[in-house]
Amino acid sequence: MIKITFPDNSVREYPKGSSALDIARSISSNLAAEVLSATVNGELIDASRAINTDASIKFHKWDDEQGKHAFWHSSAHLMAEALEALYPGIKFGIGPAIEQGFYYDVELPNGQNITDADLPKVEQKMLELARQKSVYQREEISKSKALELFNQKGDPYKVELITELEDGTITLYRQGNFTDLCRGPHLPDTSFIKAVKLTSIAGAYWRGNEKNKQLTRIYGITFPKQKLLEEYLVMLEQAKLRDHRKIGKELELFAFSEKVGMGLPLWLPRGAALRDRLEQFLRKIQKQHGYQQVITPHIGQKELYVTSGHYAKYGKDSFQPIHTPAEGEEFLLKPMNCPHHCEIYKTKPRSYKDLPIRFAEFGTVYRYEQSGELHGLTRVRGFTQDDAHLFCRPDQIKEEFCKVIDIILYIFKILDFKDYTAQISLRDKENRDKYIGSDENWDKAEQAIIEASAEKGLNTVIEYGEAAFYGPKLDFMVRDAIGRKWQLGTIQVDYNLPERFELEYIGSDDQRHRPVMIHRAPFGSMERFVAVLIEHTAGKFPLWLTPDQVVVLPISEKFQDYAEKVLNYLNNSDIRTLIDTRNEKIGKKIRDNELRKIPYLLIVGEKEAENETVAVRKQGEGDKGVMTLDEFVQHIKQEIERQLS
Amino acid sequence: MIKITFPDNSVREYPKGSSALDIARSISSNLAAEVLSATVNGELIDASRAINTDASIKFHKWDDEQGKHAFWHSSAHLMAEALEALYPGIKFGIGPAIEQGFYYDVELPNGQNITDADLPKVEQKMLELARQKSVYQREEISKSKALELFNQKGDPYKVELITELEDGTITLYRQGNFTDLCRGPHLPDTSFIKAVKLTSIAGAYWRGNEKNKQLTRIYGITFPKQKLLEEYLVMLEQAKLRDHRKIGKELELFAFSEKVGMGLPLWLPRGAALRDRLEQFLRKIQKQHGYQQVITPHIGQKELYVTSGHYAKYGKDSFQPIHTPAEGEEFLLKPMNCPHHCEIYKTKPRSYKDLPIRFAEFGTVYRYEQSGELHGLTRVRGFTQDDAHLFCRPDQIKEEFCKVIDIILYIFKILDFKDYTAQISLRDKENRDKYIGSDENWDKAEQAIIEASAEKGLNTVIEYGEAAFYGPKLDFMVRDAIGRKWQLGTIQVDYNLPERFELEYIGSDDQRHRPVMIHRAPFGSMERFVAVLIEHTAGKFPLWLTPDQVVVLPISEKFQDYAEKVLNYLNNSDIRTLIDTRNEKIGKKIRDNELRKIPYLLIVGEKEAENETVAVRKQGEGDKGVMTLDEFVQHIKQEIERQLS
Repeated sequence: MIKITFPDNSVREYPKGSSALDIARSISSNLAAEVLSATVNGELIDASRAINTDASIKFHKWDDEQGKHAFWHSSAHLMAEALEALYPGIKFGIGPAIEQGFYYDVELPNGQNITDADLPKVEQKMLELARQKSVYQREEISKSKALELFNQKGDPYKVELITELEDGTITLYRQGNFTDLCRGPHLPDTSFIKAVKLTSIAGAYWRGNEKNKQLTRIYGITFPKQKLLEEYLVMLEQAKLRDHRKIGKELELFAFSEKVGMGLPLWLPRGAALRDRLEQFLRKIQKQHGYQQVITPHIGQKELYVTSGHYAKYGKDSFQPIHTPAEGEEFLLKPMNCPHHCEIYKTKPRSYKDLPIRFAEFGTVYRYEQSGELHGLTRVRGFTQDDAHLFCRPDQIKEEFCKVIDIILYIFKILDFKDYTAQISLRDKENRDKYIGSDENWDKAEQAIIEASAEKGLNTVIEYGEAAFYGPKLDFMVRDAIGRKWQLGTIQVDYNLPERFELEYIGSDDQRHRPVMIHRAPFGSMERFVAVLIEHTAGKFPLWLTPDQVVVLPISEKFQDYAEKVLNYLNNSDIRTLIDTRNEKIGKKIRDNELRKIPYLLIVGEKEAENETVAVRKQGEGDKGVMTLDEFVQHIKQEIERQLS
Repeated sequence: MIKITFPDNSVREYPKGSSALDIARSISSNLAAEVLSATVNGELIDASRAINTDASIKFHKWDDEQGKHAFWHSSAHLMAEALEALYPGIKFGIGPAIEQGFYYDVELPNGQNITDADLPKVEQKMLELARQKSVYQREEISKSKALELFNQKGDPYKVELITELEDGTITLYRQGNFTDLCRGPHLPDTSFIKAVKLTSIAGAYWRGNEKNKQLTRIYGITFPKQKLLEEYLVMLEQAKLRDHRKIGKELELFAFSEKVGMGLPLWLPRGAALRDRLEQFLRKIQKQHGYQQVITPHIGQKELYVTSGHYAKYGKDSFQPIHTPAEGEEFLLKPMNCPHHCEIYKTKPRSYKDLPIRFAEFGTVYRYEQSGELHGLTRVRGFTQDDAHLFCRPDQIKEEFCKVIDIILYIFKILDFKDYTAQISLRDKENRDKYIGSDENWDKAEQAIIEASAEKGLNTVIEYGEAAFYGPKLDFMVRDAIGRKWQLGTIQVDYNLPERFELEYIGSDDQRHRPVMIHRAPFGSMERFVAVLIEHTAGKFPLWLTPDQVVVLPISEKFQDYAEKVLNYLNNSDIRTLIDTRNEKIGKKIRDNELRKIPYLLIVGEKEAENETVAVRKQGEGDKGVMTLDEFVQHIKQEIERQLS
């Protein structure tokens, strides 16, 4: 018998060789029907794999990432089986699970081709094969056997991969008529896969290298229920409409230029103004919380990054060093603002009474991303962090976390992110050697984060082993209006940089001490945050933030003079106002401007011009009655005040 | 006889071979005593040189740059003569006039040395030689003769210089016992030099190359009157006290870090806040003038700068291209914001009705400067321009210039630069081929600048040949509180970039047209402007701008609670307030805080605490009476409003 320990620390005995599935079945058949994979003694394995020693166990279901990963990875194999059935002689590259679904890179047999029109046929084949309830069978084989097998099968890409593997580490998975080189884990059998959607076809160079052959990449997603697929397709439609790249273009917020370079956004006037409003909003809160703004250059000497350790970390995959006419002189584009802030800390001696010191900067940093990874404003090569570094005493960590949590929750409230969770990332309990800083300090900091999160009533999960090597952290995840998750806001303890930069303060004991550093960025970056905000609001920003707050619609040309008077009055009152002077029927003007997402429409005709009033319409809400100009200004200002409090 | 045309276009006849000095003497002996050099037919020459053809003439006196240049260049020769008398066997490198005075690079004879203690002796020798009224004699000789002469004299550096010259272009100047290789022009004789100050000694590599021998550079300055030297020395003392590097450190505005790199300022909290106030001040004016803020990255692909022409211009002497993991991909740190703004212009089609379009950005640019050239905030490697690019139709140039002049004059008024002039830089009349853009466009633009300057009542000088190859410009020079000149504010027409970026707008004729681009930066850069402002105000900034506006001084510890109440009240009213809680006599607190340049001191004791008032003292003005907190807030706000209107 073996002893199995469950996540709640309860222990039960099972016959040696029991699988996670057997164990789940012993609890309930409902549970067994949901288990997709399992973590056994820290290793992620097939739910059907035999367990031969005492072990801790965690089941993975559709609800968690590991469960979905096994589901989609198995679906990639299922798609491959279907493709092989439909296109005999097809060759396979790699076929992983991804964040949403999976793909497989394939080379079609000579002269054949696959297009979107062929995908339904593949989907049908996949469903047909799934219904056969083929078991995913794991097999360990020698390197020579593996080479023999795939050579025989005629899969040159697999052969290339196997050649690079060490002997003794090679596993295969078989289901139905399909065999793949694979580490797993996989579903117990194909019948779990109930709904299939192949989403797109793209070209992809073998191993991402453009000197290699271009393969065909087929993307898909699968679900354990038809209903989930339907919901997913609806979400996809909504997401398309909310795509920040599309809305950013329509609203003229930002643009990209081939000449300037991919992944380097140009903020157009309306986007720059919106970003500035967000920045001012955050600056104001930060000032109230005792932050001090600083400004630092976008480059630093190589020595700075040797000291910080970034030089060793950002190597060949990064923007390369900038040489100068002086021999041996090298600068780097800054990938982070922290080294510069450490140098500011060092510009004068600090006392325990001065701490905490909070340096904030909207600092633009540059990090190289592969061109294929770039995506609108969410994955760029240059972005502006709403960065700050808090230098504090160890006993101040909890209070500083509390204050940063306050700022983040205030932002979520004002920007209407109602659904959020937080993850506390702590050390790996088993493996404490890989972290820098004393055990005592780590314990204190971890405790401080846990306590601060509890005091602030956060809905948290604790993940062991997810801390950075230099300190524990707290991350916030928000769910947007259509249910997608985004990571926003990080608070990170750092014992490393104060050590590397030899930061000090004089304590009350007159001795030198090392301060603790806390990195934090509530928005993450201005670019990413604006993207998330666009996708969350579908471009319908809150009144205080939106580019155009009001549009004046004269009923006819006769009232244009009065309409312009209204326009000037409002703009002079700092209300961002446009005018629609087109020679169109008022009904059409109202309809068109409702579509432009402008919150307030002011209709002006004879009566309004005579009485110096405006007929107010709110987008999506309709008529709000007639107001004088001053009443309307007050109305707007009060609404903004309500939004910001 | 030859015809001589004077600057007022009057013409007189003189015997062939007359010199500028002869001509001046024919007008008045006073004038003759002041003429230091002359421009004859566009060529700068000795006042004593014979004129043999009809010619235009302009005399140069101490008041103009060319006059000073001849004076100081001749003084360098005089110093060399003195050094040769005192240190026989001394070898000479180069000895030019500079902005303030002159220097000579020398190699002292074996085993000898020169220190600050030796300089008075050299000064005395110079004055003694000056009194001899030696004439500066010009001589044209062949290359071989010149080589022979300097070889014989044992001046290897001169020999090296001559070797590189073309035959037939070599001139010598002799005065007293000294002969130098030199293009001139020089003073008529040494007696013009009445006062001498040798200011410092430094090391300098021959030809600026650190692989060469290090020579001794001796700096000096001379004057035509003893009184001018005395004034200069007083100014120098004042300048030392006002040095922005010193005050910037004292007031904790900015710092430099060896690790970040030379010439890359770190803006400390108080400096960053001051800079932000300046930026917001300018943003507000610019918004009123129809500018739109944009934000662009600090790098651009090489192609961007190939298109703009900057890549060809910023070559080996600059920050080198940034390579990436992608083969052939190269980025450059941006040396200018214009190419990015051109790309923003191109993001959509533009109509004549849309123009002018004014894109503004506080854009940080990076330009490599030799480490020896770096100086505080005035000469840096990274700086933030208060940049804007106006895209307009040719017929809008004048109006746009008028509007920019308005902004610049408003800034000068608010920041108390009362003494300023402007220079209009136009084409070289004789040599129009070297400019790009049509003659018609140039005529229009030059006329527009001249008219706009006249309409705005500017005190201007017109300089022909000083225009950039791509367009004419208008530069502002201010004189600071101790009489030094600073260049501030540029408005520059550009026909080049619209052409290179193929910018277009659709005219009222439905045809495509090229817009004109105007570059402008009223501050120049935030760094340089803050430096000038510090040196102009000696760190005593206007109330609205200064880091600390008020300091609260409790008479004794007993009133500290009330003092803190005052502190919070004022800070909550957005008045930047400090408190001085030291356990010192109130008289000392007042004296100390007056020295800190804080405009308002609030003394609080028993009476004030009881009545919730403050006793107000203004720095440098004394007692202003007792006020309630609210009265004091109003008092400050009104003063700021007055300063900003």
